[in-house]
Amino acid sequence: MIKLYQFHPSGNCYKVRLLLHQLGIPFEAVETEMGTKGTRSLEFKAKNPIAKVPTVELEPGVFLAESNAILWYFAEGTPFIPTDKLERARMLQWMFFEQYSHEPYVAVARAWIAFFGTPPGKERELEERIQKGYAALDVMEGELSKRPFFAGERYSLADITLYAYTHVAEEGRFDLARYPAIRAWFERVQAQPRHLRITDAVPSAAR
Amino acid sequence: MIKLYQFHPSGNCYKVRLLLHQLGIPFEAVETEMGTKGTRSLEFKAKNPIAKVPTVELEPGVFLAESNAILWYFAEGTPFIPTDKLERARMLQWMFFEQYSHEPYVAVARAWIAFFGTPPGKERELEERIQKGYAALDVMEGELSKRPFFAGERYSLADITLYAYTHVAEEGRFDLARYPAIRAWFERVQAQPRHLRITDAVPSAAR
Repeated sequence: MIKLYQFHPSGNCYKVRLLLHQLGIPFEAVETEMGTKGTRSLEFKAKNPIAKVPTVELEPGVFLAESNAILWYFAEGTPFIPTDKLERARMLQWMFFEQYSHEPYVAVARAWIAFFGTPPGKERELEERIQKGYAALDVMEGELSKRPFFAGERYSLADITLYAYTHVAEEGRFDLARYPAIRAWFERVQAQPRHLRITDAVPSAAR
Repeated sequence: MIKLYQFHPSGNCYKVRLLLHQLGIPFEAVETEMGTKGTRSLEFKAKNPIAKVPTVELEPGVFLAESNAILWYFAEGTPFIPTDKLERARMLQWMFFEQYSHEPYVAVARAWIAFFGTPPGKERELEERIQKGYAALDVMEGELSKRPFFAGERYSLADITLYAYTHVAEEGRFDLARYPAIRAWFERVQAQPRHLRITDAVPSAAR
């Protein structure tokens, strides 16, 4: 069975749980702590030299890392990837936007505020990250004012990717009241078949 | 003709020039400055709300952004994307690694040191970025000690992506002497048919 090495509250790990559940693919979750006893241990780096979760073990000894690449792997040939070439590239555009212009701000602010504490001396950096997080949310609001989902008319990996940290952005003290298009999109994402919440345990069918 | 909005010394823009040249796809380059007169102008944001270069105009009014998504768009169905499903996902893994764990450190250090100056008060942040850049180079060295290219036996988009800023990392004062596997890979990348250097002008055949 597929193993998902994960930290449950991580949005990057949640992306993978959500897609696997929506695809009906069973998996086993292996909770993995950050730091030198977990992702930074020599044992874990032998699985994934990038030393991060999520990491999936597809079959014994075969590993794949980077949340959005994992999503791609499992979604190939399914309706989660658009069949139109430009829409497919547009989907990837928003997935790269998420990793470069959204996650380092929205997710890191949440991680510091809600989970690990702001590292000493990083208070000003936190403010900068919140400011850049709002810039990413502004871009999302603009797009969602024009179309229902990021790649076009249909729910795709781009929506899973951007939903993961945006819907819990308030845990990083982002005020989402000012983003009506984003909040309406939350409802469209949550209305998809077999939706799973970030706090939901790994489904028993998938254990 | 395809238009590439770009800043010529940017590695992200170079990726697109290199692939288009290797594919023999003609394009016109439109130099675009950063900041409120360029990428942050309302006019440019109407093309790309993420407000960054590279941005390509595929046909009049149809834009695509994010360097690695642009590479994907043009490379679909070509030998630059592996036909094996796992190798394809592995290629994407390294492309997401590049945007999350490499570019913000290796490219930003170079941009500050070689082009724009380190922003006031960011001297300590620069040191942190250099440290994390070395961590990314360490990961690359480990991979390239095991296989000739990032996705496996063949040159792919992952190599274009990671070559772009790594081969000019010394402009960000990274010492590459300690990375023999990376330097040997530089030679393999440079030996590919129709290689283009970052300093090369847009090829006249492509003007």
